[in-house]
Amino acid sequence: MDIAGMAERIAGGERRALARAITLVESGRADHRAQATELLATLDTGRQALRIGLSGTPGVGKSTFIESFGKMLTAQGKRVAVLAVDPSSARSGGSILGDKTRMDELARDPNAFIRPSPSQTHLGGVARRTREAVALCEAAGYDVVLIETVGVGQSETVVAQMSDLFLLLLAPAGGDELQGVKRGIMEMADLIVINKADGDLKATAVRTQADYAGALRLLRKRAQDPDGYPKAMTVSALEDRGLPEVWTALEELAEWRRETGHWDATRAAQARYWFEEAVKAALLAELETPDAQARLKALSQAVAAGDAEPTVAARDFVQQLRGETPQAG
Amino acid sequence: MDIAGMAERIAGGERRALARAITLVESGRADHRAQATELLATLDTGRQALRIGLSGTPGVGKSTFIESFGKMLTAQGKRVAVLAVDPSSARSGGSILGDKTRMDELARDPNAFIRPSPSQTHLGGVARRTREAVALCEAAGYDVVLIETVGVGQSETVVAQMSDLFLLLLAPAGGDELQGVKRGIMEMADLIVINKADGDLKATAVRTQADYAGALRLLRKRAQDPDGYPKAMTVSALEDRGLPEVWTALEELAEWRRETGHWDATRAAQARYWFEEAVKAALLAELETPDAQARLKALSQAVAAGDAEPTVAARDFVQQLRGETPQAG
Repeated sequence: MDIAGMAERIAGGERRALARAITLVESGRADHRAQATELLATLDTGRQALRIGLSGTPGVGKSTFIESFGKMLTAQGKRVAVLAVDPSSARSGGSILGDKTRMDELARDPNAFIRPSPSQTHLGGVARRTREAVALCEAAGYDVVLIETVGVGQSETVVAQMSDLFLLLLAPAGGDELQGVKRGIMEMADLIVINKADGDLKATAVRTQADYAGALRLLRKRAQDPDGYPKAMTVSALEDRGLPEVWTALEELAEWRRETGHWDATRAAQARYWFEEAVKAALLAELETPDAQARLKALSQAVAAGDAEPTVAARDFVQQLRGETPQAG
Repeated sequence: MDIAGMAERIAGGERRALARAITLVESGRADHRAQATELLATLDTGRQALRIGLSGTPGVGKSTFIESFGKMLTAQGKRVAVLAVDPSSARSGGSILGDKTRMDELARDPNAFIRPSPSQTHLGGVARRTREAVALCEAAGYDVVLIETVGVGQSETVVAQMSDLFLLLLAPAGGDELQGVKRGIMEMADLIVINKADGDLKATAVRTQADYAGALRLLRKRAQDPDGYPKAMTVSALEDRGLPEVWTALEELAEWRRETGHWDATRAAQARYWFEEAVKAALLAELETPDAQARLKALSQAVAAGDAEPTVAARDFVQQLRGETPQAG
């Protein structure tokens, strides 16, 4: 594979080259992994997009929001990439962005790039690949990278680790119930956006916004937040209302963090985190060869049957892996 | 170190030998780790104690409960070991069982063995060591091993992975509030025991028991549970009331699980889990040498400064670790 040529085409903004590179990054094959790493080493990864993490429970209108929000940005001449982290895609075989018809217009926009979630067994694997895909989108000159996930907890933490800002999309809800949103996710949000502020739901949306604004004031006061943030707002993705205000808020917050140094500090901490994760993954990759898997399975059965002590079996396994003779006993 | 002699003394029930063996198991030194593994390979680890996980929020009277419950069991001629998993001990420098005066009488009982939580940075490390300490206690002929932890979530999951039964100790509480106990911990419990059912709190304790009995019926119906389990009961550890009933319930449940095969299935799954954890830990132990740590730190700083891409830096690090020449790029 011509890595240098691919890097050049990505830097030149070719969407097809970017799509192929992400496929390479997502591959589990060792030779693909080596090529993907070589590609990342070749590309200029110094460019920074605005990385926006986006979460919301199913039915909240996330696709409609991304479509409307994305189209607004591309109309301003910005280039927008949409990636997804979906821990359930391994099970369902599908992906939250797989149904591209849901973002029909944005998908056809030449300034937009939409990529479904990779299907993988482990959230950790999906996460590392998505982080690399984000880096590829930045190198390809995208101005905004939206990283979408579903509201199930662990995937939000992972998306927050690769985002500059985190947006939580919610539906209007009666009363002051917090819609089953986990406190941890609330604490992660820089912006809570109540969607469907239209028609019959408009009044409820405004009330919901007030509830969340109150909850946010109680929940969080971080050094990374200027006055007024985290913030709750209402939008109607369907009627295209409130979206410019969301963008203004995101830009204002990003700008403040850049000026105060929080932006760089967060990016540095995230880079450290992904470096350490990649080191661990590389060491554990020793377990992924067919030979290692077969021996792991056999020893695991012996351990389960009570024929071997877990710690002792692990020592013997690792010694064999390293080509040492297991000790007697 | 005379591993064979130590194994013999442990099998003979010598508490001092057991204590020294647990110190060996807890050590982070590579030579100690090798000796500890050798000891586990030498000992007969086929003996099974009843392993009881025990959790409860601070102030619930856990030490008093363990002291009363343990003394009741030793009075019946049973040998009882008490271990602890305390993720906070690394920070506090202390340990939940460090204050032995809290279990004064049990500590002096020749049929009891009490061991504080090891001080370690990572819960994962504490967990693996405690699992090995449990195996040592079983090999030393203890009939009951109590594994204590505090009610903070992750440590409960880890204790449940090394327990046959899980007991959650709670205080009497007004109303139907669930005392901030996480749903996940509730779902883990085979027995919820409301302590302090004495004096002014007695009526409240009975009401709390009814509340939790109701909650348990809604929360869980697993194949591992016979009719009537999970169960909520009241005790007074202070006045020594209700403890025989707790023991009867635990024995009844254990017996049912043994007969239905759930006991063996759970033990097998746990053994597999600890084997896999030990394999991962052994592979990641490569990172713990001073040389690896120094290079990890330097690369981490380069990555944080934006001078190296995380995935690329990780590849270079692992290649150096393996003595390969890092690729150019």
